[in-house]
Amino acid sequence: MRSEVLLVSAPGKVILHGEHAVVHGKVALAVALNLRTFLQLQPQHHGKVSLHLPNISCKRTWDVAQLQQLDTSFLEQGDASAPTPEQVEKLKEVAGLTEDCAVTERLAVLAFLYLYLSICRKQRALPSLDIVLWSELPTGAGLGSSAAYSVCLAAALLTLCDDIPDPRKDGAPTGRWAKEDLELINKWAFQGERVIHGNPSGVDNAVSTWGGALRFQQGKISALQRPPALQILLTNTKVPRSTKALVAGVRSRLIKFPEIVDPLLTSINAISLECERVLGDLVAAPTPEQYLLLEELIDMNQHLLNALGVGHASLDRLCQVTTAHGLHSKLTGAGGGGCGITLLKPDLERAEVEATKQALTSCGFDCWETSIGAPGVSMHSTASLDGPVRRALGDL
Amino acid sequence: MRSEVLLVSAPGKVILHGEHAVVHGKVALAVALNLRTFLQLQPQHHGKVSLHLPNISCKRTWDVAQLQQLDTSFLEQGDASAPTPEQVEKLKEVAGLTEDCAVTERLAVLAFLYLYLSICRKQRALPSLDIVLWSELPTGAGLGSSAAYSVCLAAALLTLCDDIPDPRKDGAPTGRWAKEDLELINKWAFQGERVIHGNPSGVDNAVSTWGGALRFQQGKISALQRPPALQILLTNTKVPRSTKALVAGVRSRLIKFPEIVDPLLTSINAISLECERVLGDLVAAPTPEQYLLLEELIDMNQHLLNALGVGHASLDRLCQVTTAHGLHSKLTGAGGGGCGITLLKPDLERAEVEATKQALTSCGFDCWETSIGAPGVSMHSTASLDGPVRRALGDL
Repeated sequence: MRSEVLLVSAPGKVILHGEHAVVHGKVALAVALNLRTFLQLQPQHHGKVSLHLPNISCKRTWDVAQLQQLDTSFLEQGDASAPTPEQVEKLKEVAGLTEDCAVTERLAVLAFLYLYLSICRKQRALPSLDIVLWSELPTGAGLGSSAAYSVCLAAALLTLCDDIPDPRKDGAPTGRWAKEDLELINKWAFQGERVIHGNPSGVDNAVSTWGGALRFQQGKISALQRPPALQILLTNTKVPRSTKALVAGVRSRLIKFPEIVDPLLTSINAISLECERVLGDLVAAPTPEQYLLLEELIDMNQHLLNALGVGHASLDRLCQVTTAHGLHSKLTGAGGGGCGITLLKPDLERAEVEATKQALTSCGFDCWETSIGAPGVSMHSTASLDGPVRRALGDL
Repeated sequence: MRSEVLLVSAPGKVILHGEHAVVHGKVALAVALNLRTFLQLQPQHHGKVSLHLPNISCKRTWDVAQLQQLDTSFLEQGDASAPTPEQVEKLKEVAGLTEDCAVTERLAVLAFLYLYLSICRKQRALPSLDIVLWSELPTGAGLGSSAAYSVCLAAALLTLCDDIPDPRKDGAPTGRWAKEDLELINKWAFQGERVIHGNPSGVDNAVSTWGGALRFQQGKISALQRPPALQILLTNTKVPRSTKALVAGVRSRLIKFPEIVDPLLTSINAISLECERVLGDLVAAPTPEQYLLLEELIDMNQHLLNALGVGHASLDRLCQVTTAHGLHSKLTGAGGGGCGITLLKPDLERAEVEATKQALTSCGFDCWETSIGAPGVSMHSTASLDGPVRRALGDL
C-alpha cells in the first residue's frame, strides 16, 4: 500500500461526429476533451475514509472500522462484472444515504464506495484516506463527467493498492500508464459507470482512460492511431434536454420516413470516416486545406443533425454567432440544446477567438477554450498542476 | 383572324422539392405559382405592331408593312425546332435593338418577335396589334417569369390566328384550353424560352402552361393528377445569386465528398416522392396530419439544401422569422439567396399570417401571400380581372 499523496486527472469526452447515427449501427468518433477531472488521494491514519466533491458541495466520511466489519462478500462476484441491483441496494445501506440526497451526489457516493470496497478489499485492512475530486467539466452536459470521475477513482485506488505502478518516470511531472494498466483502469471505471448509469456504452470511460480519439461502432471501440490535438471552443447552451427523448425522436423519424432518413445516417457515417481520414493526414503533414475539410464536415453534419430533428434554437444561435466570426460549429452529443463545439484553426487571431468567446457568453452560454484529442488518465506531481486546480483540491 | 381583345394569363413556378437534386437525375416537383403574367392583345388597323412591357418600362413599335417585306424564310425551319443562332442574329436586326438596350428588354423583344413572326407568318398578312404584358412576378428570381411571358404570347397569338379556339364556354369569365391546344401553346412557349435562355429545361413553360404540379426527372415531365392548391408565402430575399455558380458548387461538393453527398441527393429524392404521395392524399381527403407531414418535409429539405452548401444567411433569417411564427420554410430554386416558400396551413389565424408577412418585410424582403398548384394559362373576360391588373394593362 502506498503512503504518498496521489494526484490523478482524466479528461471528458465529446462526440466529434456520429452522435445519433451510432445508435443505428454507424461509426461515431469520440474524442478526449481537455476539460479534466482532478483527484487527490491522501493516505491517512485517522481511521476514516472521506470523500470530498467540492463541485457539488458533497463531503462524506465513513468509519474504516465500520466498513471493515461489513460483510463485503456481496461484492465477491466483483472483478468487473456488472454490479447487480442487489449490490447497489446493499451499497446504499453502507453509504448511509438519506432520501433527501440529490441524485448526482447519491450516484457519486455509490460509485466511490463500490470502487473503494471492490478494489481495496483484498488488502489486509481497508485503507484510511481523504479523497478530493474536482472537475472542470459541467455535469449532465453529455461531456463524460461521470466517466472521468470513475476513471480517476479507479486509477488512484489501483495505484494505492499497488495493482498498477506510479507511471511517472525519473521524476517526470506527469506520467501515463502502460497499455495493460490502462486496460485495468478502464475495466474498473466501466464498473463505476455501470453503478452510475446502469447500462453505459463504455465509450466515455474508454475515451477518458485512453485519451485521443476513439472510433465506436456497434459496441466495438478502437483507438485512432496518433490523433492530432485540435483547439476548440466548447460551448454549453445550458438548455436542458433529454437524451432519451431525442434518441426516440430520431428513431420515430426513421420509422416514419425510412427512405429519407436512412440515407442521412449513411451520409453521417461517411462524414465520420472522412473525418477519421483527415485527422490521420493532419498528423502526418498538417495543411490549411485539412482544416477547411474539417470545417466543411462540421457544417454538413450540423445540417444533417438538424434534418434528423435534434437541433435547437440555442444551437442555431451558437452556429450563427460563430459563423459571424468565420468559425464552424456543430452540436455534440444528444443535441436539442446541450453543448456545441467550434473548431479553432491554428492560424486564428487571438482577438478573434476572444471576441467569439465574448459573443457566446453574451448569449448566456458557458464557453471554454480547450482542446480535443487530449491525453487520457494521467498521474501528476503537485508542482505540475495549475494554481486553480491546486486551490480547488484544497491547496496542498 | 380574330378581331376582339384577348386577355390571357399564365402563372409563374416554384420548385417545391428537388432543386439541385434534379441536376443529378433525381425527381423534382415544380408547381404553378399564382403570381401571374397578364397579356392583353388588341387587334388594330393602324399598320403597327406595338409591344408594351410596363414592368420594365419597355415600349416598342414596328411597322407591319416593313415586317411584311422582310424575308422571314429564316424562320422556315420553325414549327418548334430550336431557334438557331443565325435566326436570333437575324431577329436582332429586325428588332432594331441598340447596344444600350438592357438584357431583359432585349430578350423580351426577341422572344416576342420570334413568336409573332413565326406564328403569324402563315396568315395572308401580318396582323396589326397592340400587346401589353404586365406581371406580378419579379424577373430573374427563378420564378419562371420568362416562361409565363412566352406562354401568354404563344396562347394569345395562336388564338388570334385561330390555331386554337377561345376556350371560354358559354360566356364563362375564364376558360382553359383543351389538352391538344395546351400542347401547341407549350411547344411555342418553349421556343420563346429557347430564344431567352438558350437551353432551358422546359419545366418552367410546362408548369406555366399546364398549371398544378409537375414531376420532372431526367428531362421527363409528367403532370400530377389533381394537385391540391396550397396557400403559401413567397418571399424574395432579393439577395442576388448565380444559379450557375450554385449548381457548380453542389457538383464540386459531390465530387469532393461522394460518399457524403450522394446519400443526400437520395434523401432529397425520397422527400420529393413522399411529398407527391402526401399531395395525392391531401386531394383525396385532407387532414391536419398531412399538413404536418408537408411541414416536416419542408424542414428536412431545407437542412439538406444547407448541407449541399446552397443556403444563405438571408434564407436562415427567413426560416428563423417564420419558425418564430410557427411556420415552416425552405428555399426554392437555386438558393444562395433568392426566394423561399412558407407553407400556410388552412387553419392559420389571419393575424398570424399578417404578423409573419410584416416581420419578413421588416427584414427587407418582398413577401407575397399566394398559392401554388394554381391553374395554368387561361383566357379571361375583362370583367373577370382584378382592378389592379386592369389598371396595369392600361384600363380598357
